[in-house]
Amino acid sequence: MPRDDVTKIVLDESEIPTAWYNILPDLPGEPLPPLHPGTMEPVGPADLAPLFPESLIMQEVSTDRWIDIPGPVLDVYRLWRPSPLYRARRLEQSLGLAGKQRIYYKWEGVSPAGSHKPNTAVPQAYYNKEAGIRRLTTETGAGQWGSALSMACAMFDLECEVFMVKVSFDQKPYRRVLMRTWGATVHASPSKETQAGRNILEASPDSTGSLGIAISEAVEIAAQNDDTSYALGSVLNHVCTHQTVIGLEAKKQMEAFEDKPDVVIGCVGGGSNYAGMSYPFAMDVLNDNAQMRFLAVEPEACPTLTRGTYAYDFGDTAGTTPLMPMYTLGHDFVPAPVHAGGLRYHGDAPSLCGLVKAGMYEAKAYAQVPVFEAAVQFARAEGFLPGPEPAHAVRAAMDEALAAREADEERVILFNLCGHGHFDMSAYDAHLSGKLGDVALAEEELQAALANLPPQPQPA
Amino acid sequence: MPRDDVTKIVLDESEIPTAWYNILPDLPGEPLPPLHPGTMEPVGPADLAPLFPESLIMQEVSTDRWIDIPGPVLDVYRLWRPSPLYRARRLEQSLGLAGKQRIYYKWEGVSPAGSHKPNTAVPQAYYNKEAGIRRLTTETGAGQWGSALSMACAMFDLECEVFMVKVSFDQKPYRRVLMRTWGATVHASPSKETQAGRNILEASPDSTGSLGIAISEAVEIAAQNDDTSYALGSVLNHVCTHQTVIGLEAKKQMEAFEDKPDVVIGCVGGGSNYAGMSYPFAMDVLNDNAQMRFLAVEPEACPTLTRGTYAYDFGDTAGTTPLMPMYTLGHDFVPAPVHAGGLRYHGDAPSLCGLVKAGMYEAKAYAQVPVFEAAVQFARAEGFLPGPEPAHAVRAAMDEALAAREADEERVILFNLCGHGHFDMSAYDAHLSGKLGDVALAEEELQAALANLPPQPQPA
Repeated sequence: MPRDDVTKIVLDESEIPTAWYNILPDLPGEPLPPLHPGTMEPVGPADLAPLFPESLIMQEVSTDRWIDIPGPVLDVYRLWRPSPLYRARRLEQSLGLAGKQRIYYKWEGVSPAGSHKPNTAVPQAYYNKEAGIRRLTTETGAGQWGSALSMACAMFDLECEVFMVKVSFDQKPYRRVLMRTWGATVHASPSKETQAGRNILEASPDSTGSLGIAISEAVEIAAQNDDTSYALGSVLNHVCTHQTVIGLEAKKQMEAFEDKPDVVIGCVGGGSNYAGMSYPFAMDVLNDNAQMRFLAVEPEACPTLTRGTYAYDFGDTAGTTPLMPMYTLGHDFVPAPVHAGGLRYHGDAPSLCGLVKAGMYEAKAYAQVPVFEAAVQFARAEGFLPGPEPAHAVRAAMDEALAAREADEERVILFNLCGHGHFDMSAYDAHLSGKLGDVALAEEELQAALANLPPQPQPA
Repeated sequence: MPRDDVTKIVLDESEIPTAWYNILPDLPGEPLPPLHPGTMEPVGPADLAPLFPESLIMQEVSTDRWIDIPGPVLDVYRLWRPSPLYRARRLEQSLGLAGKQRIYYKWEGVSPAGSHKPNTAVPQAYYNKEAGIRRLTTETGAGQWGSALSMACAMFDLECEVFMVKVSFDQKPYRRVLMRTWGATVHASPSKETQAGRNILEASPDSTGSLGIAISEAVEIAAQNDDTSYALGSVLNHVCTHQTVIGLEAKKQMEAFEDKPDVVIGCVGGGSNYAGMSYPFAMDVLNDNAQMRFLAVEPEACPTLTRGTYAYDFGDTAGTTPLMPMYTLGHDFVPAPVHAGGLRYHGDAPSLCGLVKAGMYEAKAYAQVPVFEAAVQFARAEGFLPGPEPAHAVRAAMDEALAAREADEERVILFNLCGHGHFDMSAYDAHLSGKLGDVALAEEELQAALANLPPQPQPA
């Protein structure tokens, strides 16, 4: 039986992981390479050089299982890491559970930016600074990533230029102020700053934007300026790798609780927080040292894993990135403006998609209203206010527990509460006022978006 | 020399203090009693019975040095306590300090409500629930206290009705939503819900409100309903006592750093966060076991300790509370609507005022602009975004360090970073846009407010 005398496990600073886990060498089958859209040949490090410093490109393609975390990155991690891991006793009580179903959560909202995003923003800023870069550009949806990069740039004395998806820019004015407080410049995307943005605005002057569009804008500026790099907050291998500090800590903390998860849950927008939480556990399963379930949760308005197609697609809307093998809704798909802005992405991390395709990871989609109902129940029980994105994981964790109770099965559930909702109060306001709509993606809209997939490579 | 290998000290849950420290028996001289405004006789427990449960009244008048923390309160504290204590290495670096001047801060922003306020909200909700109370009423300025009580009421299944100072109600819409998410009802004060509110609105329809007015409203409803108690977020002895978990933890953490503060700093609105941080250190000074300085920081717009008069005054605007011996700007003084809403109170905790009067505690007032400049510098160095209230303490800590560097003196500075500024982004926006005014209190306005002090007791 698990320890019953503690609510949370906090680890000492000395227990921050000193290496990230890279899942690439452990993935089932030969990984499909990203392709150059012109030649349809595998993308090499040279193709990425206009956007990223060499150190990050080498991490992106690395097949080393462990990658050392540099000292200056660890020094910043110390500000909030290790993050605490909780047994959700009060939530369990509010669900009428009696200990046979147990819910644990990792709390990443303790970082200065309020989410897991600094776990990769900090090393990305560090490596760019080391490479002599002066400025970083990026996109942000809900604003979590843009905030994290703004903070990281302040700490490593880099300029930071953020393209923020317009719907979030308008819904979350205070996120902009937060980024400006850390010294960043913030544009609503689509913007007039870039050719990609101007093209979109010409075709759709009222565009609410999307992560895909914002990526196109940020990439364009980085590609055109030698002193400027691009920083991506999710999807790429090196980003998922940086996030594994979450799961590596969580494994130690679950051991300290003397308990083992049966199912590991996280929300998925581009996949980084869930990769970070789940890959260190998946490592044991892939190496036949453990058995457990993995459940990725996404919004019905942007159901990449549950209704998308597994194909090569661009990472951005304008079609400027390499083609990546992933589940996709089509690179020019613009999701409905749901409040979980960080989950409004047409694709997902290729590594995560591979695990779903292999049948090892399950996926589930939820509508907004039940997600916010779960978030409010969680907040009243545990105190902490979930962001709309991890509220999807809260909903799924509650449903897993209730299903197990129904079946009278023991079940240990671990989820990643990857950020707080302090800058999402307009969403809570809409929910509490009964104004939140459920926006499932219509089949015809999905088919129209999928019709625009780029040409696929021919089987050899 | 202090430990140089760690950034923060986190304690295990088992090191949460199990008793609060009550400074009353250690205060210099015989404490002046609160007086009944009608009889001018000392107030007894019976006078407080319409507002508070007996258990809290007994704590209010207790002269026991230690008061046990009930188990169910400790169980909630475990959600975020012990809070971390940091060496502000990055801030020191940004100030050009080289280790001779060292800055430490206790970080209370990790609580679900984002500040130190739950330290007393939770026990107050617990004791009221135990006493069979169904509903709590309260006032809130910046919203930190109202949020904390809303959360605590959700956890102990109590209704919660919050009167929020109108200027903050308008400046901080998302604070209202936060309180509603935890299940509370929120009114802008002055409101039409109470006679006190209606009287103010009749005289000043455009009143921006004040903590004094909001207290009058909350007290009125509690006094008129048997199933309803009033809960105060500061000033009273039992509130300051509950907050001493901050300083008790901080002492252990400073010991773990192998360092000792020369000066302990906190912002003061009603006095509770600073009392909570400083009293456990003051205990050692009062018992001749240590020497150190204490510095209370307040806004120039509401300079209670630096320009107020030490006299008996009401705690609220309508004159319904007992008369308390304290520094005051006059109970009907309405401070300018500065963004540090939690510091807009005409009086201060009598215990804290006594220590200022005795010359043991120093006080200093700051204008808004230098305070926000310090907050931005802190955020860019340490990551965390200070609330406008503790930003006053940040400013003072930085100035102490710079003055010591100027004098080439060693100085160890400890301050309480009592809450985050996530719901204060309109204030940061105003600052970053150069729209923040410095609003010092005019002497004629001060004299006019002081002219309305109630009759003072005659010397025996």
